[in-house]
Amino acid sequence: MIDVREAKNLIKDNLICERIVSLPLSEACGFILAERVLAAFDTPSFDQSAMDGYAFSHENWDGKTELTIAGEVRAGTYTPDLLKPMQTVRIFTGAPIPAGADTVVMQENVTVFGKANRINIGQITKGSNIRLRGSQTRKSEVALKEGKLLSAPAISFLAGIGIDKVRVYAKPHISIIITGKELLKPGSTISFGKIFESNSLGITAALMQLNISPVSIDFIDDIEEELIRAIKNRMGADILIVTGGISEGNYDFTAEALNKCSVEKLFHRVKQKPGKPFYFGKYLQTAVFALPGNPAAALTCFYEYIVPAIGYFTRKEYFQKLKIPLADDYKKKVGLTYFLKGKISSGTVTVLSGQESYMMNSFAMADCLIQLDEEKEQYIKGELVDVLMII
Amino acid sequence: MIDVREAKNLIKDNLICERIVSLPLSEACGFILAERVLAAFDTPSFDQSAMDGYAFSHENWDGKTELTIAGEVRAGTYTPDLLKPMQTVRIFTGAPIPAGADTVVMQENVTVFGKANRINIGQITKGSNIRLRGSQTRKSEVALKEGKLLSAPAISFLAGIGIDKVRVYAKPHISIIITGKELLKPGSTISFGKIFESNSLGITAALMQLNISPVSIDFIDDIEEELIRAIKNRMGADILIVTGGISEGNYDFTAEALNKCSVEKLFHRVKQKPGKPFYFGKYLQTAVFALPGNPAAALTCFYEYIVPAIGYFTRKEYFQKLKIPLADDYKKKVGLTYFLKGKISSGTVTVLSGQESYMMNSFAMADCLIQLDEEKEQYIKGELVDVLMII
Repeated sequence: MIDVREAKNLIKDNLICERIVSLPLSEACGFILAERVLAAFDTPSFDQSAMDGYAFSHENWDGKTELTIAGEVRAGTYTPDLLKPMQTVRIFTGAPIPAGADTVVMQENVTVFGKANRINIGQITKGSNIRLRGSQTRKSEVALKEGKLLSAPAISFLAGIGIDKVRVYAKPHISIIITGKELLKPGSTISFGKIFESNSLGITAALMQLNISPVSIDFIDDIEEELIRAIKNRMGADILIVTGGISEGNYDFTAEALNKCSVEKLFHRVKQKPGKPFYFGKYLQTAVFALPGNPAAALTCFYEYIVPAIGYFTRKEYFQKLKIPLADDYKKKVGLTYFLKGKISSGTVTVLSGQESYMMNSFAMADCLIQLDEEKEQYIKGELVDVLMII
Repeated sequence: MIDVREAKNLIKDNLICERIVSLPLSEACGFILAERVLAAFDTPSFDQSAMDGYAFSHENWDGKTELTIAGEVRAGTYTPDLLKPMQTVRIFTGAPIPAGADTVVMQENVTVFGKANRINIGQITKGSNIRLRGSQTRKSEVALKEGKLLSAPAISFLAGIGIDKVRVYAKPHISIIITGKELLKPGSTISFGKIFESNSLGITAALMQLNISPVSIDFIDDIEEELIRAIKNRMGADILIVTGGISEGNYDFTAEALNKCSVEKLFHRVKQKPGKPFYFGKYLQTAVFALPGNPAAALTCFYEYIVPAIGYFTRKEYFQKLKIPLADDYKKKVGLTYFLKGKISSGTVTVLSGQESYMMNSFAMADCLIQLDEEKEQYIKGELVDVLMII
């Protein structure tokens, strides 16, 4: 039996997660860039007006004479004619500055007169209100670096410089196998001795928080040959999650089935509560996690171990880690790390009542997991504890 | 022109967002419950073992005599026979306690002997290691209250008590109309005077952060009749977002088109930078937001105004609001609220360089928007400012 830190390190050291994919920009939000993106053009690609106003040659203007309006240029249009000295054109935001003009005056700062074809201009600095070609991004320069999160503004930025696809760190392909003879589908009628199967929904929902859909979910009725067949069948996945049958009862044959499938066991059993039977192994490129069938233990292991493992693929940290003062004293047993369902309120974190591993109602109310150290017995109100947010 | 606070209040007061839907539990993660969920059964629905061990009648035991193993009961099975005094059954976690038994002893705490059909038990309290029927949830009691976030553990909890569908506050149906004659599709060749269209991708990506896909995106080439047709066509949406054509240039006819579509204008122009031309109106049940075409201004208005509006539908707060000390002094003009692209590092927030409204590269690096007050001119390093996280 190993401790939580060793378990986390073994996972980190044994994952093979170099999956990079090319995605259309429209599907890339939330991914991490796996390349540096170079600008293919200057952006703006032409000198453009930053305002609705009038473009003219400040160079050839005496600072006082009114100018004649020679035409109009709006965004998306092109004026081939050279602007003559003492002429001006009406111009709109984003429109190209005509050849011969070097300055734009805001429409609010001019007086139009003489059948509306002449304007008077006040004080203005040469070059005002022009967004120069390349002033945002220059051709061939690095627009975004490798490792950058593609936020919505980053997507908009890349679209704006003409990028339509990017290489990103891919999400892992995840397969789930649910074992258990006692499991009923929710919505069916309860029958004696059976319980409703909830891990497939709980784990799928937790994956949805990471914007991941499992590629498959198999349900196995505690028959070892069926489990072996299912495991072999899903060995193409990056991550295989098996729930149930991992304790030490006579019918807990998940570890044995994984062994028969040549999965290399890296650890089985961790000094923690809940989730002591937690198992991790690998087979070629596939990381295999076996979770206790107990839904609270399964989800605890999912948040504490599998979410970071997924993050090694996608290069993301999904949930915040905080240090928050405990709302009350808490006493635990020495020798196990505790992961407790917690709720944060007014800057402190409360250990919710109902921490037994089958009590999902407390987990349903939780916004975080509180981690209490293996070697420590007594926690005092106000003491800072490690908290992993789960929403 | 109104101020930011008035604009936010007008949106809040004028949204009609009573959309409730029934969803399969498998699709309900991340939604807010619009009903209280009652338990249909006791859970556990039977007394069950919390351990792998041996079940026996503590009541009929003298505290020292060894017990005879009469059989075995595992999860998902049912033992009709009454257990006799001084008998025990091998039992596994989650299995039903046989009639006549009242206590389970952990397998680690017994000695098996006599051809492995008898056990010796140490000290144990009556009732140990049994999860009593109804000890998590009692039939007819409220399992989850209205207003509760359906986290993954909440989904797992509800599945575990046999729930398979829930009523939740629905996401709004959102339609987007992009206007602009100057817009090219990203990936196409740049041509003089044109820019790449990025708002459709940027806004869709930002909606994806909220797990929302727009129901439609129309592209309109700055022709008023076409715009009017598109607006009328999309009036079934809960939220209609129009980008571009909302400034005061001669070709900015979005406000006029909305007026011709009988959209009631609630405000147009807000004392803010960027996004001054921002417009909000409504037509029957449809909330209409018109954003400046400038991508940075459009996304700023999206995060500051439309995300909270979506939250009124879904009853969620999507992005964290924090108060963080400024990393440096900052001087602004009085009379406008500023929304600045910021980045948090080591507990302070830095105003990124490149705040001009067309500079998307700074927005691409930002993790937050910093809000600076309309009436204030000078901010001092270390001063707490309002920050809206955007990732």
